[in-house]
Amino acid sequence: MTPGGGGSPDDLGHWADLGPGREFDLIRRVLGPRAPQNERVLLGPGDDGAVVAGGLILSTDLTVEGVHFRREWLSPREVGFRAAAAAVSDLAAMAAEPIGVLVSLALPADDAEVWAPEIGEGVRSLLDRIGGVLLGGDLSSSPGPVMIDVVAVGTSASPVTRAGAIPGDELWVTGSLGGSRAAVTCMEGGETPTTGMLDAFKRPNPRVAEALWLRERLALHAMVDLSDGLAADSRHIATASRVAVVLEADRIPVHPDLPIGKNGANEALQGGEDYELLFAVPRGAVEPMVAKFAERFGVGLTRVGNVESGTGVGVVGPPEWGEMEVGVGFDHFHVEG
Amino acid sequence: MTPGGGGSPDDLGHWADLGPGREFDLIRRVLGPRAPQNERVLLGPGDDGAVVAGGLILSTDLTVEGVHFRREWLSPREVGFRAAAAAVSDLAAMAAEPIGVLVSLALPADDAEVWAPEIGEGVRSLLDRIGGVLLGGDLSSSPGPVMIDVVAVGTSASPVTRAGAIPGDELWVTGSLGGSRAAVTCMEGGETPTTGMLDAFKRPNPRVAEALWLRERLALHAMVDLSDGLAADSRHIATASRVAVVLEADRIPVHPDLPIGKNGANEALQGGEDYELLFAVPRGAVEPMVAKFAERFGVGLTRVGNVESGTGVGVVGPPEWGEMEVGVGFDHFHVEG
Repeated sequence: MTPGGGGSPDDLGHWADLGPGREFDLIRRVLGPRAPQNERVLLGPGDDGAVVAGGLILSTDLTVEGVHFRREWLSPREVGFRAAAAAVSDLAAMAAEPIGVLVSLALPADDAEVWAPEIGEGVRSLLDRIGGVLLGGDLSSSPGPVMIDVVAVGTSASPVTRAGAIPGDELWVTGSLGGSRAAVTCMEGGETPTTGMLDAFKRPNPRVAEALWLRERLALHAMVDLSDGLAADSRHIATASRVAVVLEADRIPVHPDLPIGKNGANEALQGGEDYELLFAVPRGAVEPMVAKFAERFGVGLTRVGNVESGTGVGVVGPPEWGEMEVGVGFDHFHVEG
Repeated sequence: MTPGGGGSPDDLGHWADLGPGREFDLIRRVLGPRAPQNERVLLGPGDDGAVVAGGLILSTDLTVEGVHFRREWLSPREVGFRAAAAAVSDLAAMAAEPIGVLVSLALPADDAEVWAPEIGEGVRSLLDRIGGVLLGGDLSSSPGPVMIDVVAVGTSASPVTRAGAIPGDELWVTGSLGGSRAAVTCMEGGETPTTGMLDAFKRPNPRVAEALWLRERLALHAMVDLSDGLAADSRHIATASRVAVVLEADRIPVHPDLPIGKNGANEALQGGEDYELLFAVPRGAVEPMVAKFAERFGVGLTRVGNVESGTGVGVVGPPEWGEMEVGVGFDHFHVEG
């Protein structure tokens, strides 16, 4: 699922009649009541990617102008890079090796000459970084916004799903959180984001190599990528694994350009499009390799919570922070206010 | 590639500055100059589908409101069925067995409640017919038109490509051609299409079982599905196989509701979205199985031309028909007039 990075209430006021959580409910209704029945399908909808016989992982990610980005915010090349990064991040979430992507583009006819090759360049620039190729695509004119659908294709002999977390596990994240959302919040408010925030928004770094490195060394019980925000993505693990997730607000590695304390933690909890990894592992397993990971990838590993028996997602924090909002992450079919 | 079934010059007049063939050129520019380099990619862009290690076939097909359909023409369920049929037809073109599809939907917020489940129902109805499952998807709001991207996933130990036709081969098609385009032409002109035309447009029948049946019994040298029209799709075979294709206009199995003679043949040549198969086979190989095929599938097999040494696509016909137009098929970035 792609979270939204944009869309002000003014633009999208007609959405307000749809309540929170609507997006996930609608997806369930698209998928229908029946479970997948095909002997070649090892894992159907509901995880970061589907798994078909032979260990192929497939995931799709849609980017829509006016919902996920605005033209003032991103160049066509950046749009392509970001769309591909979002799709490939789902492969990382399953600890899959990327093979490539398929790209479908709908472009206004007036823009096609410039946008088509530039988006292609952005997609290929991301692919070069992670060792994947452009497998194919489709192109149509659009009577409205630019739309890009990227399907990521990868492979894994033993994909990590959302479903294996067990009580007693620790929850860890890569990198720092909240920068991308902070950039969007600034731009929507007419302010200038910091370079660091903008970089988090424009050049997300799907943690493909990091995921493979971790899987080689750890029993990864469950993993997701942080596309909907730490709170919402924790819920994906809690639901699929039938456990409770307890997040520790003051441990969240907040993006360095965000305020410290409660406000920064809240941004990171509700943020989206961080494209970092969140994973559940046996207690004590990660600690010994934090320094080596940082040395190898230039990015941190931080324990942000624990898995307990129960249901749902809770956030605990210092008493003076008061109650933290868990929320449901960004919902395309819900706009506040 | 999805051809367009609609869009009048009035709606889309701003496209006229882009010339014919622009779509294919733009796709080339998205794909970029580099050949795919990943040992798991057996066949990259340029055929009906990509082939990755393990014999997995992948193809993507984009459907855009106002380009491929109008709301007055199709119910949401029919839109879903058709979008899935178009994608799955690319699997048939490679004689692959379907596994399933991924579906990305962008829907105006006001329509989402009705459209999301209905499109899902239409997609699943097509999948039930061909034995595939819904593998996953993504959902976003759209500030403009409804858009659906369907990625079809199939498998084949020996996929049939566009590239193996050799001089001396015969070219055959399944079914009858031109009905879908005739329906669109009628509706655009405010006329009522016949039931047969409407059925061809609304309920295309991807020839999955037919392709597998043919491959078991024949040396299929090259195959495509007819999505861009007989003339344009013949060119795909000619180009990929480095041969000339000569079509015999008076042999084309024109849809029964189209005029007989030159006009009907021209419609069938330029038509699109027939989703029938066009294939090159050794001389004399198909003739003995025409009756059995018709009995098994309730649809005809017709020889429409020959493969010769050379380049390009030619159309020959009765002298009194005069010159036939080969054209380039429907181009999303070109509108006549």
